[in-house]
Amino acid sequence: MEIYLDNSATTRVCPEAANAALSVMTDIYGNPSAVHSFGVKAKTVLEGSRRALADMLSADTEEIRFSHSGTLANNTAIFGAVNMRKKLGNRIVTTSLEHPSVARCMDALEEQGFQVIRLSPEKNGSFSVEELLNAVNKNTILVSAMLVNNEIGAINPVELISRAVKRVSAPALIHVDAIQGFGKIPVKPSKMGIDLLTVSGHKIHAPKGVGALYVRKNLSLKPYVVGGGQENNLFSGTEPLPAIAGFGAAVSSIKSVSGHLDAVKKLRDNTVSMLKDIPQVQINSPSDALPYIINMSVMGIPSQVLINYLSERGIYISAGSACKKGHRSEVLSNMGFNPNVIDSAVRVSLSRYTTAQELEAFVYTVNDAVKNIRTKL
Amino acid sequence: MEIYLDNSATTRVCPEAANAALSVMTDIYGNPSAVHSFGVKAKTVLEGSRRALADMLSADTEEIRFSHSGTLANNTAIFGAVNMRKKLGNRIVTTSLEHPSVARCMDALEEQGFQVIRLSPEKNGSFSVEELLNAVNKNTILVSAMLVNNEIGAINPVELISRAVKRVSAPALIHVDAIQGFGKIPVKPSKMGIDLLTVSGHKIHAPKGVGALYVRKNLSLKPYVVGGGQENNLFSGTEPLPAIAGFGAAVSSIKSVSGHLDAVKKLRDNTVSMLKDIPQVQINSPSDALPYIINMSVMGIPSQVLINYLSERGIYISAGSACKKGHRSEVLSNMGFNPNVIDSAVRVSLSRYTTAQELEAFVYTVNDAVKNIRTKL
Repeated sequence: MEIYLDNSATTRVCPEAANAALSVMTDIYGNPSAVHSFGVKAKTVLEGSRRALADMLSADTEEIRFSHSGTLANNTAIFGAVNMRKKLGNRIVTTSLEHPSVARCMDALEEQGFQVIRLSPEKNGSFSVEELLNAVNKNTILVSAMLVNNEIGAINPVELISRAVKRVSAPALIHVDAIQGFGKIPVKPSKMGIDLLTVSGHKIHAPKGVGALYVRKNLSLKPYVVGGGQENNLFSGTEPLPAIAGFGAAVSSIKSVSGHLDAVKKLRDNTVSMLKDIPQVQINSPSDALPYIINMSVMGIPSQVLINYLSERGIYISAGSACKKGHRSEVLSNMGFNPNVIDSAVRVSLSRYTTAQELEAFVYTVNDAVKNIRTKL
Repeated sequence: MEIYLDNSATTRVCPEAANAALSVMTDIYGNPSAVHSFGVKAKTVLEGSRRALADMLSADTEEIRFSHSGTLANNTAIFGAVNMRKKLGNRIVTTSLEHPSVARCMDALEEQGFQVIRLSPEKNGSFSVEELLNAVNKNTILVSAMLVNNEIGAINPVELISRAVKRVSAPALIHVDAIQGFGKIPVKPSKMGIDLLTVSGHKIHAPKGVGALYVRKNLSLKPYVVGGGQENNLFSGTEPLPAIAGFGAAVSSIKSVSGHLDAVKKLRDNTVSMLKDIPQVQINSPSDALPYIINMSVMGIPSQVLINYLSERGIYISAGSACKKGHRSEVLSNMGFNPNVIDSAVRVSLSRYTTAQELEAFVYTVNDAVKNIRTKL
């Protein structure tokens, strides 16, 4: 039996998405840019997926541009926004909790001479609103914050950013990395006053190799990768159509975001309640976090030891994020956790396919680990 | 019956590649960066594909880095090489025949103040060797040329570049876009003195959404897209594993590059000989072009009219490249063809799966088009 609880790293492709991808690989395999009717068929699949994403984001189809990855969408949004606004100011506001695909862009911009302000998290893991209000000034050209933190699941109040920007009439564009939230909580960028918003396929049961950027209407963003001019010139390169078809199918297969959220919340609450019966367990995720993510420490057992113990028994979880292999979590450090909590921290991440039985088996095995590993120590 | 003769735009995914991609989507779906054994399984697939590409290029596995597209690999190679060498000179040598994913990078570098020299083609469509020797000087930091032209199939003598560079001891890195040649003619970058070489999956029956860059050993190229540090930090973003698995399988399924080349050459020669019986047909590809590509004009019939006529009968070809929709071919213009030849030019592109019967049906239908369309004119 295998129990996969690393869904914030990546997910199993759902049958709808796998079938859509397969059909594009072997049947509707034309190039969407080709002018013959076989190319037009491929273009129809592309536009169908665009419609599915637009519907989920309450956006217009022309606001959705497919990229080859969430990382590429984040790079394009950030470098593009700064390029657009650089004559109007020098300050960029972000958070100290961002995913490397945002954080490394910020490092590069800082090296180029931009002033980068990184908001610290409050005790609940979301950025400090007071710091946000103090940080955004008339010189601010970009505010970029993630919607849901990938390591602990904290939900940021990103809808406050546009208020902070308007308050001082800053020329800032607002970018939100919504990769961990999309498909799991309602995300409506236009209502939230967001200009640019990143999503990714493989976190919600689409194939790896596709992301998308919401670009607010009438915002003319310069491309980062250049070439054939695909996706309204924003993401050049032949469209990754199997993954795009799968992305559309995966999004369409989500019948009710809030229905799944309620169900996963119940699973999370039960799991946390069972875990709390193990004295060595500490839950690091705030109680109002996205229920799809449970960050926890089993005190005295280093992350990798627990991961290996579970892995040998067919249960798969991770330490922090898959992108930070071997490094101590910056996010937990920035949240002020003690090093011994951080060194024992693991992330258990659920999907809408996760069952109560799987989570019971997980808790049972953690209990087991506590007995067996501590005995050996 | 459908006859697909647009294989230089994109190809049907072969069964081996489709199966490999499907297995990664629904079975081995872990994140290769994850530290549990399920992630390790995914990593094994990734490394298997890397081995397949390395073998095909007679390269070491550490010289192969997977990208999310050929375009991204070209952007990374060009901007990265210029970044590495910009203190040593200001001149870049390329050709006037490059694909937009190279040509647009060159435009951007020219805007930044670099001196970009674009070699003109000779009558056979490959770049002028004399111009190459004159163009490369001590100030040259990058030479970038395509191996096989995507519109007419001309094969460039890229092995001469390293000689030109050495002759004047230029600090230039050598980049070759080998997307149209890889898997069709032998490509051995280290033997050819090439530092960076781009390939793409979907031109050789792998899924769309994956490319790779050969990076000569000990060359430390700066990434263009930044983030989680995947692919030895060169291509951040979760690896597009279904497409990568498919790429490896597609490469492994090529039993003999030269065997397929001989077979396709016979098909091409027969087809050209049949076409020459139609007085209105002019072959634009040089006779020593890659036999997978036949560029031709049916004089008096505009490209799009012929494409539509064939498309309505289930035969799919293109005008120039899929990336140039609606624009007159720069490549044919630069080769010195008359506007009326260019406006009638179409590209017929074969794959190793193309049959003699399909090509006979194509020639028959062109003949038909000449009778029916000209009658209407």
